[in-house]
Amino acid sequence: MSTSSQSYPMSGGDDKHSYIHNSSYQKAGIDGVQEKARQYILKNLDLLNMNPNLSTFTIADFGCSIGPNTFHAVQNIIDIVKLKESQENRFVPLEFQVYFNDLPNNDFNTLFRTQPPSSGQEYFSVGVPGSFYGRVLPRNSIHIGNTSFTTHWLSKVPEEVCDKKSPAWNKNYIHCNDLIEEVTEAYKVQFTKDMRVFLKARAEELVAGGLMIALGQCLPDGVAMYETWPGIVKDTIGDCLQDMATLGLTTEEKIEMFNLPVYFPQSSELKGAIEQNKSFTIEMMEIVSHPLEAMQLSNNFVTSMYRAILSTVIEEHFGDSVVDELFRRFAEKLSKHPIDFEKCKKQMVYHIVLKRK
Amino acid sequence: MSTSSQSYPMSGGDDKHSYIHNSSYQKAGIDGVQEKARQYILKNLDLLNMNPNLSTFTIADFGCSIGPNTFHAVQNIIDIVKLKESQENRFVPLEFQVYFNDLPNNDFNTLFRTQPPSSGQEYFSVGVPGSFYGRVLPRNSIHIGNTSFTTHWLSKVPEEVCDKKSPAWNKNYIHCNDLIEEVTEAYKVQFTKDMRVFLKARAEELVAGGLMIALGQCLPDGVAMYETWPGIVKDTIGDCLQDMATLGLTTEEKIEMFNLPVYFPQSSELKGAIEQNKSFTIEMMEIVSHPLEAMQLSNNFVTSMYRAILSTVIEEHFGDSVVDELFRRFAEKLSKHPIDFEKCKKQMVYHIVLKRK
Repeated sequence: MSTSSQSYPMSGGDDKHSYIHNSSYQKAGIDGVQEKARQYILKNLDLLNMNPNLSTFTIADFGCSIGPNTFHAVQNIIDIVKLKESQENRFVPLEFQVYFNDLPNNDFNTLFRTQPPSSGQEYFSVGVPGSFYGRVLPRNSIHIGNTSFTTHWLSKVPEEVCDKKSPAWNKNYIHCNDLIEEVTEAYKVQFTKDMRVFLKARAEELVAGGLMIALGQCLPDGVAMYETWPGIVKDTIGDCLQDMATLGLTTEEKIEMFNLPVYFPQSSELKGAIEQNKSFTIEMMEIVSHPLEAMQLSNNFVTSMYRAILSTVIEEHFGDSVVDELFRRFAEKLSKHPIDFEKCKKQMVYHIVLKRK
Repeated sequence: MSTSSQSYPMSGGDDKHSYIHNSSYQKAGIDGVQEKARQYILKNLDLLNMNPNLSTFTIADFGCSIGPNTFHAVQNIIDIVKLKESQENRFVPLEFQVYFNDLPNNDFNTLFRTQPPSSGQEYFSVGVPGSFYGRVLPRNSIHIGNTSFTTHWLSKVPEEVCDKKSPAWNKNYIHCNDLIEEVTEAYKVQFTKDMRVFLKARAEELVAGGLMIALGQCLPDGVAMYETWPGIVKDTIGDCLQDMATLGLTTEEKIEMFNLPVYFPQSSELKGAIEQNKSFTIEMMEIVSHPLEAMQLSNNFVTSMYRAILSTVIEEHFGDSVVDELFRRFAEKLSKHPIDFEKCKKQMVYHIVLKRK
């Protein structure tokens, strides 16, 4: 029952360019904050008390992509719920069912094939194809929802930024880098709308007392995307595309019509978007540095990470012949002009626990 | 939480050899009997009465393979439950959730990609990777289970039939054709055990009052597999493998160790296996001719159908290089010595509705 939306999954399969082998940045983000969510659940989850006959505990990971991060995230949740269960006297041991959600063209075959062997002893797995910008599960069916590093993917590129006649036309750039006010505004509107749809759907899917844990990227208030290293990376990819157009490997016009459906909100903007939804209380919200922010990331790491994240959306627009050459040039450019991580403004990781009223 | 078992899904993808394009035989079987199941559900389904607050109606198709048959089967069930719903005064309209179950190496990507566009308006889809010879879903979570043309696939080949020292060694054949008593006995034991496990798992997964609809193939009492056309087909495939060994394209030894994990029970044997499980009542059981049994199936139809069904299990044992040549030879053999369908004994279609006590 998902609404139609643009759909660019992480790179599938398990070769060297796959998301499976290039998701350690996201993993580090999850590891950095999980302890607080664990403590919160242990202290405050009252679902088990509320329903002493509860037999199946359901967890959903929205925008799961392919392993290992999603397996890691859900196992963390299961471990803490089991600990909580063990502290109470229950008649029936809980069975766990985990809903792995992502777009229908996500590589579910690889997801299922790469499940940790032990997971079969811990929970029943199901795959849920559909955009989380819409309902993907029945009413009142989920006890804990999770989403990690997903909400910066918008349901679509705002139309104005590809419209030559609009003041929000993003002619010279391929993403919202905050250099053109009208472009930022268009992305902001889309983000707010998408968050509203996302939270409305989750509010319907979660049971009363259910928790929604969200982890993702945002900017500190007042920081612009072009000042951060992910912003610089995307601007550099845009430059590489321009070089390729000069050489006839793609066209100016194609680049002018290309924008990433990605937006990093500033932290107060994110908070505002969440507070719009009255079905949840914000139980916990912290905005912290990404544990890898302080490090000097290697050129190879950055290249591989962005290739795994962006190759699908780039292939969709430019054809699959450009990807190899594009990232070869990108790596070359990085090695000539390394990103000065110390001079960049920091992006942040937000970590939120919402409770369904 | 599925037990490990051998796993040979139908041919994936959607090319000309795929199961998607070669499953009309099974479709005809479903169409032939569905009306009776519809009538039964309409008259006897009491789940809605039992639980006036029921908000989500769950359906599982066990061994769904890839479309279109599974979509067809679940839509039939949804249509009739909706009709029943409309005849009652309910506060909340039902939402439907459909669990598509098959082995983890089933092509779920294709399954999700080929869902009828309208299905998104009708139900929430999920994929459930795991062998149905074991639990794949939580306790008491399913209202109607379905399985179509699956239970002849055993969880594994009985070990004795590949054991040179056993009297049940099936040296000269590749399946249970009922020519060697010890072989038949070994398959029979495996089938009985598998049915026990299948029904035990489904009994746990279904809610009280839930229905399990099963459709599949069996033999009339007293009929041997080698007398039926599917038996003749498999014996002919065995002959083609022998020819290929003579030409050095495979080896005698490989063929001697190859057996299909497939068994067609006789109808009384099937009934006995089902009655062993005391958690269900048999609400309906009919054993009918397959609607296509009376027809002269074309050589091309038979070749394509068996290629879609068997290529995965053949590739697994012999490597993927033999499949093209094997089915080329098979087609050639059929055109020289067509199957005389009129002289063959008939296989039958069984159609059962079980109710969870």
